[in-house]
Amino acid sequence: MEIRRKIPSAPSVRRLPSYLTIVKQLQHEGNEHISGALIAREMGLEPIQIRKDLAITGITGKPRIGYPAGALADAIERFLGWYDVQDAVLAGAGNLGSALMGYREFQSHCLNFVAAFDTDSRKIGAGIHGIHVLSMETLETEVRRRGVKIAVLTVPAEAAQAVTDILVRAGIEGIWNFTNVKLKVPGNVVVQREDLSSGYAMLSVMMKTRNRTEKESP
Amino acid sequence: MEIRRKIPSAPSVRRLPSYLTIVKQLQHEGNEHISGALIAREMGLEPIQIRKDLAITGITGKPRIGYPAGALADAIERFLGWYDVQDAVLAGAGNLGSALMGYREFQSHCLNFVAAFDTDSRKIGAGIHGIHVLSMETLETEVRRRGVKIAVLTVPAEAAQAVTDILVRAGIEGIWNFTNVKLKVPGNVVVQREDLSSGYAMLSVMMKTRNRTEKESP
Repeated sequence: MEIRRKIPSAPSVRRLPSYLTIVKQLQHEGNEHISGALIAREMGLEPIQIRKDLAITGITGKPRIGYPAGALADAIERFLGWYDVQDAVLAGAGNLGSALMGYREFQSHCLNFVAAFDTDSRKIGAGIHGIHVLSMETLETEVRRRGVKIAVLTVPAEAAQAVTDILVRAGIEGIWNFTNVKLKVPGNVVVQREDLSSGYAMLSVMMKTRNRTEKESP
Repeated sequence: MEIRRKIPSAPSVRRLPSYLTIVKQLQHEGNEHISGALIAREMGLEPIQIRKDLAITGITGKPRIGYPAGALADAIERFLGWYDVQDAVLAGAGNLGSALMGYREFQSHCLNFVAAFDTDSRKIGAGIHGIHVLSMETLETEVRRRGVKIAVLTVPAEAAQAVTDILVRAGIEGIWNFTNVKLKVPGNVVVQREDLSSGYAMLSVMMKTRNRTEKESP
């Protein structure tokens, strides 16, 4: 597989986990080969788009046969680095943090929460979905001691930058940021900002477009 | 403003809520005009991308002055239909559902949860973030009675299609689907599927790319 220097298109990367779910499901149902057309139907996208997206992983399908199911799943997981367990900490064990800790898909994507951190004394010492909640005061020591590189940030907006500074000092290299704060981090740390409103924007535009089309062509 | 027939590019639409947050914040800080370059810096994107994205709302900035802050916020909200309150129901009041009900940004985007529905008798009758949890058995009647058109689906995967069928019968026109199930719906219903793993895929690829670059150019 050729290693590419360029960061591939974000929408393509964002679709890969859905492809992986579909491929594993079809494989589980006994399919040895999976066509781009079949994935396209499941995703509601054009087959050409599927082929382009999957090409970033280095795999190419065969005309009329498709992709070997096992090799396709492997190629996606290898491209994403989802073959080795990656330890992560979660900062902010509120509702969203708890939901993410309980999200079963993450385990199959090798994302392993080793601990969660919160300032609420009623939560500290407890377990959420089997993950220990520790005091936010121990965040820096624990991250450093365990050598964790990934942090999921679900603290209130007011605390986002202060907690980020601690994470950076402790050696975190990647932050998945669910707050709507633009974090200041040094160049060696990457931040993926997640805005839950993005999906609602898509839904709103699709509903508006559909209503307009219906009114125009009754 | 010209009404466009085409659905605009998904990544552009997905970025609009972040632009809206930035614009409102800058406006709140006293800026009457906001340049594309300023938004670009906040977002970590190229100015040309910002101009292209904002153009879908029908607004164009002036060279060296930028966009009038109020008009820009209005254009984004109008494009997304986020100026009238939209009632919604939430099906599945687990951790993720609770997190979404408590997500403050949705209120400022005119998304109003009128009720949540669950099968857990310990939750039914209670309130989560001030929103009533009702029995899933009353879902169809309540949605129909209140004339709600939007549903957020956060039920377990096994229940996703059955609950969707009820929502469709009750007159729901847009489903924001947080399960990883591809829902079968009639052509007049739109579904926005949200995969929480998408952001983790982005973070994984960014971390891999950065590590490779660092190793190659120490």
